[in-house]
Amino acid sequence: MSETTPIFGKLTLIGAGLIGSSIAHAARRANLVGEIAAYVPRPETRARAEKAGFADSLYAEIEPAVRDADCVVLATPIGTYASLAALIAPHLKQGAILTDVGSVKGVVVKDVGPHVPAGVHFIPGHPVAGTEQSGPEAGFAELFDGRWCILTPAPGTDAQALDKLKTFWRRCGGDVEIMDAEHHDLVLAITSHVPHLIAYNIVGTAADLETVTRSEVIKYSASGFRDFTRIAASDPTMWRDIFLANREAVLEMLGRFNEDLAALQRAVRWGDGDALFNLFTRTRAIRRSIIEAGQDVAAPNFGRSRTTGGRR
Amino acid sequence: MSETTPIFGKLTLIGAGLIGSSIAHAARRANLVGEIAAYVPRPETRARAEKAGFADSLYAEIEPAVRDADCVVLATPIGTYASLAALIAPHLKQGAILTDVGSVKGVVVKDVGPHVPAGVHFIPGHPVAGTEQSGPEAGFAELFDGRWCILTPAPGTDAQALDKLKTFWRRCGGDVEIMDAEHHDLVLAITSHVPHLIAYNIVGTAADLETVTRSEVIKYSASGFRDFTRIAASDPTMWRDIFLANREAVLEMLGRFNEDLAALQRAVRWGDGDALFNLFTRTRAIRRSIIEAGQDVAAPNFGRSRTTGGRR
Repeated sequence: MSETTPIFGKLTLIGAGLIGSSIAHAARRANLVGEIAAYVPRPETRARAEKAGFADSLYAEIEPAVRDADCVVLATPIGTYASLAALIAPHLKQGAILTDVGSVKGVVVKDVGPHVPAGVHFIPGHPVAGTEQSGPEAGFAELFDGRWCILTPAPGTDAQALDKLKTFWRRCGGDVEIMDAEHHDLVLAITSHVPHLIAYNIVGTAADLETVTRSEVIKYSASGFRDFTRIAASDPTMWRDIFLANREAVLEMLGRFNEDLAALQRAVRWGDGDALFNLFTRTRAIRRSIIEAGQDVAAPNFGRSRTTGGRR
Repeated sequence: MSETTPIFGKLTLIGAGLIGSSIAHAARRANLVGEIAAYVPRPETRARAEKAGFADSLYAEIEPAVRDADCVVLATPIGTYASLAALIAPHLKQGAILTDVGSVKGVVVKDVGPHVPAGVHFIPGHPVAGTEQSGPEAGFAELFDGRWCILTPAPGTDAQALDKLKTFWRRCGGDVEIMDAEHHDLVLAITSHVPHLIAYNIVGTAADLETVTRSEVIKYSASGFRDFTRIAASDPTMWRDIFLANREAVLEMLGRFNEDLAALQRAVRWGDGDALFNLFTRTRAIRRSIIEAGQDVAAPNFGRSRTTGGRR
């Protein structure tokens, strides 16, 4: 397979949100597919997807959407996977690849696996990329550039199918890592799920105060709080499903976070400046490593525009 | 005072880090001062400040730095204020304004207030702006544009001096709010201090795991974690001093955060999807208000460059 020939004749996206539409844009940019179909059952969302124009065909029904597809990508909230897999399975052609983009992988194996017919290659996946925006208009071709896509194939997965999917993600701009599903869920619990949970939590705490008004929280948010509100603006349905699906790993990592926070709270209460200083010094090094690894920008304040359209 | 005449003949900065150097750049941009002096005792830092070139004169000694100054701004970590105030006080001229930029205000009144000579106007202040970078090279003129500067003058503060300082900050690009010191410390505890504490904490937690490697945390950080590392890269000395200085308010707000997190943890454990969904929906509205108030950018991912200098 050369670096310019299409990988799949027909690619079917189940769902057309941020990730689904970004896959379509990235696949077109690199000429990875002959045809892009998308299953978008809600008329309102289908109209938006039509306007965004990233798919060749949009379907309200499963059967014509997945018929003859070489690759089908589940790109809806995880809670919908089990019933969608049951709908999709009877219409998949022999040799097709069925994959997904969900942020939890153990549950996908459990919910989707039993429905997969013999002769179809089921390879769970997770492109570790996103923004706080959602919907068919939110996607863009560069979303996966320089980001990692984790695949969690079961032992014995067809090597050729796996190679095809790896090539697909690489040519979408990403790097591919293979991992088992359980370890994936532990890694993402600390790098993604718990950070989202505590961001949602502090924004909720701030909104409920009686001693500080909401207007004050908003006015003075540039001192740190605003960073958390970006993450806490992520899609509620998607994130509800993630926490329901990765309960054990989230609770394990949250337990560690709470232990560490209790120690830090004690250091504040007892005025232990050395403990504070030591932690605050240690954490700087991690930031540097992330920038060096190309996973964030070095510019201050994430390179936010210096004048953010403020009041003057 | 017209919108173009200088406000102070001589402005003295005590310290030349991110905020001090940004004040110098902003004051020059708007022609607010005749002359900028800076007290920078450490030879290495003084050399860097000299190279950055924002001050007319740099001093290793207090007396010549503050002599004849119309306005002196404390811009060092809060823990140094008491001893610096004692050094500065004997050399302040009658009618001068003494102010600061610290993130906690109650302790400033307590530490600096007793040293201020009669005839000198002491007005604590806090420009609510910053980046995760520090040092004389980190400053820039636009830092205060569209941001709020909170002043916490004691009752009976000279109206003319207060007006001068308000005008100074407005012409540095900011908006000015007057507040009492105690309320300031409560507001900043939730908008800034607790967010920093939990960001430092989760970065520490992630660094200490045995089940997930540091390399994995860094590779997959774009899924949420990297946002926290920016804040957790802030200056350790400055932040140690803030937590030591604002203990009561930080513990109060952290207590509320912990209560809410316990409830959220319970919702995850018991699979209460409605509770999760309701919180996640509520928090979206706050993000929108912050963007509408001009306190953050609307662009996804803070408008980070779409290709962040990744590996390809």
